Amino acid sequence: MAKTRSFQLSAAPATVLAHLLVIAVATLVLVWLLKFQDGVALSSHNKQKIFNLHPLLMVIGFILVGGEAIMVYKTIPAKREVQKTIHMILHLIALLLGSLGVYAVFKFHNELHIPNLYTLHSWLGITTISLFGLQWLAAFFSFVFPKANNYARDSYYPWHIFVGSVVFFLAICTAEAGLAERFIFLKLQHGRQALIMNFTGLLIFLFAVSVGLSVILPRG
Amino acid sequence: MAKTRSFQLSAAPATVLAHLLVIAVATLVLVWLLKFQDGVALSSHNKQKIFNLHPLLMVIGFILVGGEAIMVYKTIPAKREVQKTIHMILHLIALLLGSLGVYAVFKFHNELHIPNLYTLHSWLGITTISLFGLQWLAAFFSFVFPKANNYARDSYYPWHIFVGSVVFFLAICTAEAGLAERFIFLKLQHGRQALIMNFTGLLIFLFAVSVGLSVILPRG
Repeated sequence: MAKTRSFQLSAAPATVLAHLLVIAVATLVLVWLLKFQDGVALSSHNKQKIFNLHPLLMVIGFILVGGEAIMVYKTIPAKREVQKTIHMILHLIALLLGSLGVYAVFKFHNELHIPNLYTLHSWLGITTISLFGLQWLAAFFSFVFPKANNYARDSYYPWHIFVGSVVFFLAICTAEAGLAERFIFLKLQHGRQALIMNFTGLLIFLFAVSVGLSVILPRG
Repeated sequence: MAKTRSFQLSAAPATVLAHLLVIAVATLVLVWLLKFQDGVALSSHNKQKIFNLHPLLMVIGFILVGGEAIMVYKTIPAKREVQKTIHMILHLIALLLGSLGVYAVFKFHNELHIPNLYTLHSWLGITTISLFGLQWLAAFFSFVFPKANNYARDSYYPWHIFVGSVVFFLAICTAEAGLAERFIFLKLQHGRQALIMNFTGLLIFLFAVSVGLSVILPRG
């Protein structure tokens, strides 16, 4: 590809936009769950509070923290080894918070005797968190301990990036499907809660785009 | 990046998988709409038939044809100029079928006095088709007629690919959200129709991944 065929833009504006979207999405989710819904709790007589932990942890814990983990190589001005460690730790935090979020929705279903795993959202979501966990383990064994040989690491590297992108993309699809089905379950149509949920979905998509852009654009 | 850090795989298996998924997704959508729903029609006393045109045209016309358009550079063994022309024509077909699909759902809503554009699915969808139309026009004016100068074309080229990927990704998110909300509207839970809709969503995602893979992998 000719050198003129470049984006002629550095990653900096994309990462700034992504950070701003983290604040915006986290705010919208908190306002939705704390002001328009009944709040959150891991155990309560009000079972909706248990459900509400699910979108809270999946959006803020899994997607936003996971997106920040992806951008580490563009946002943290440190040595490569330090960036890799932060990338790994942030992804581990995302995995743990995401797993707790999945646990919360199973707990909610079980306590109300609602069946699990019958919607497209749940199929996509269980695939996302499983692949995410496998990818984290494969990367840990290959890049950290016990570490694969150079050839195997180099062969895995592009697939690590590709599978990571696919899982992130799948997480976004899952969130959009989840918000869409929750909206119908709540029988919303117009009003402030409907707008807050739809803007959450829209800004989650924009966050994913800005994360993707920050990955493909060169450092400043 | 070192040369060893390559995928060590050509695009051919990804394109074959994508073609197989086109057949699988089209079959599932047709079985769903013709066998488990009332079929399709552009005008009918049975308004569900008008609605059913929407998923039919959006999935088969917009997403599957659009995905094939993206893969043309890997699947059609012809000169670059021929590939570009087929890419453009397939995207125009996708745009026209997609627009007809959007028209069908507005017609359905209007005939039943259901409000338009209040769900996340509709917000994502109207954004998708608008960006898709703008991207098609921008590419036509830049690359076909009247054609921008070399420098402008080279500057636009990476953004054409990036925006195209974003719009395709957004189309997939929209489809997943649409299937998820339709599933709840139809009050499905278990049974064959539920499985068919969920597998449609899952295979649409796999189709998108195989299209993405066929783009980044080198020709055989």
